[in-house]
Amino acid sequence: MLAFVLDEGPPRLVYDRARPEPVEALVRVRTVVAGICNTDLELARGYMKHRGVLGHEFVGVAIDGVFAGRRVVGGINFGCGSCDACSRDLARHCANRRVLGILGADGTLAEEFLIPEANLVEVPALVSDCVAAFAEPAAAACEILEQLGSVAGRDALVLGDGKLGCLIAQVLVSDGARTTLVGHHLHGLDWLAECGIRLAPEARAGARFDLVVDATGSPHGLAGAIEACAPRSTLVLKTTVAGRHEIDLAPLVINEVNVVGSRCGRMEPALERLADGRILVEPLIDARMPLASVEVAFAAAAKPGVRKVLVEVG
Amino acid sequence: MLAFVLDEGPPRLVYDRARPEPVEALVRVRTVVAGICNTDLELARGYMKHRGVLGHEFVGVAIDGVFAGRRVVGGINFGCGSCDACSRDLARHCANRRVLGILGADGTLAEEFLIPEANLVEVPALVSDCVAAFAEPAAAACEILEQLGSVAGRDALVLGDGKLGCLIAQVLVSDGARTTLVGHHLHGLDWLAECGIRLAPEARAGARFDLVVDATGSPHGLAGAIEACAPRSTLVLKTTVAGRHEIDLAPLVINEVNVVGSRCGRMEPALERLADGRILVEPLIDARMPLASVEVAFAAAAKPGVRKVLVEVG
Repeated sequence: MLAFVLDEGPPRLVYDRARPEPVEALVRVRTVVAGICNTDLELARGYMKHRGVLGHEFVGVAIDGVFAGRRVVGGINFGCGSCDACSRDLARHCANRRVLGILGADGTLAEEFLIPEANLVEVPALVSDCVAAFAEPAAAACEILEQLGSVAGRDALVLGDGKLGCLIAQVLVSDGARTTLVGHHLHGLDWLAECGIRLAPEARAGARFDLVVDATGSPHGLAGAIEACAPRSTLVLKTTVAGRHEIDLAPLVINEVNVVGSRCGRMEPALERLADGRILVEPLIDARMPLASVEVAFAAAAKPGVRKVLVEVG
Repeated sequence: MLAFVLDEGPPRLVYDRARPEPVEALVRVRTVVAGICNTDLELARGYMKHRGVLGHEFVGVAIDGVFAGRRVVGGINFGCGSCDACSRDLARHCANRRVLGILGADGTLAEEFLIPEANLVEVPALVSDCVAAFAEPAAAACEILEQLGSVAGRDALVLGDGKLGCLIAQVLVSDGARTTLVGHHLHGLDWLAECGIRLAPEARAGARFDLVVDATGSPHGLAGAIEACAPRSTLVLKTTVAGRHEIDLAPLVINEVNVVGSRCGRMEPALERLADGRILVEPLIDARMPLASVEVAFAAAAKPGVRKVLVEVG
């Protein structure tokens, strides 16, 4: 089958990848649409040392199991099923987990892939394929509410106007936070202003917020984020940047800031919001390309100011 | 009067410092015992660029106001009294605050000093002067409970067996946490083991904790602290280290760690615990010296393995 594979050197399209065989709790899914994520770009640069098929954002049709023939999205962490984290329904924190397209498991930028049946969630009929393909990043955005509870009435600052920042700002504003989105590529984001999000090229000097989210994807973002934190505020880290970075931690201690690392989330709250329009994603789509053009799609996704590139597989 | 003053060069004892005059909301306190804190050592190295009398740990006797003649301890932050933080009883987060012996206000390593009357709390009769002198660092330790709520039943790791680490470990174990204290100077800490605290020269490789407190006072402490954090655990930063440090933040995001900066606390919970023995401090006292010998005391406090040096003023 066609698959986009990371091995030595840059990832490349191969034509003869063996189709996966269903094993134990894993079922096959036929990919319909897969998204390219910043994490994929980081993986190609060496993050997590992943080898294999890339891709973890998807909507597909299950081939095996109880969802056979149904459109599905799914959580990307494959827990061991027996540890303490797995028993608390936190497979995404299982120490022995594999992660779809990221760690020890082939991903979704291929005609088919394997995933634990327990990870799958059926997509409501009224959610289109291209919208459903955002379930994974939308779930990552919703995870902030799962971790913090309601943010209604808080002054929130989201740093980074990439696709994740745009999703997070929508989740916060629809939960009732006064939300400012800061970034350098605000062109074409007027629709976010219509959702009540304040757009700004940079945070006002000296402005302090109750809730700051770093979604810049850049090591430099964190310094600005720390500076914008009011005393006793919450700083959510949504950025996975490989490697070590220099930061001054003293302001976090002096201002008693609560820093929350935040990663993947559950599919259900994301699908709900994608279905009822609290999260809009269509304006984030810059390009759709077939799997045969995935190398071009990957290069496009890496360009500054480009948000979501979707790969249409089948 | 005698005072220990930081100006250009290392701090020194002066004999002719003018006695402070009471102004507006500030009252005079005659210092009885003052403690030397790691923050004082950091200030002498340039942290906060403080100029003036050093010292912020104290027990004294109020000269003016409603506490005149009474033994008092007190909060060290002088809020502006009119901002949002001050109106929420969070003077310690007032953006325009001065801080006793740390920022814009002469400190306690002198015969007398000034402090807002509202900051003072009377010391119960059964608490001795040398014990009461620990009210400020004990309050900083208790602040963790104020921020996190109860820690009963949690697996806690305290990194750093200096005085603050020893206070924090006692606060956590007396609240019901299974508490391990890790440090390189465990000699003489058997009394902590008798309180139920597990002592270890280093964290067991691979061990993960629900609650990790970095009280090492060292930039290297943080890396070990991050490593010991279980998924969805809490990491409390108790260390104020001047300057920028290199850290790898990815594990905080991947493990969704909640990082809590933590600083000063309220006096009342600290005095309660010092009075009823939940916090023991006498074994932490390595030396007591008169104010005339404060330069020797300061040098002693900087030695590795030395915990608390108290300066007896009057």
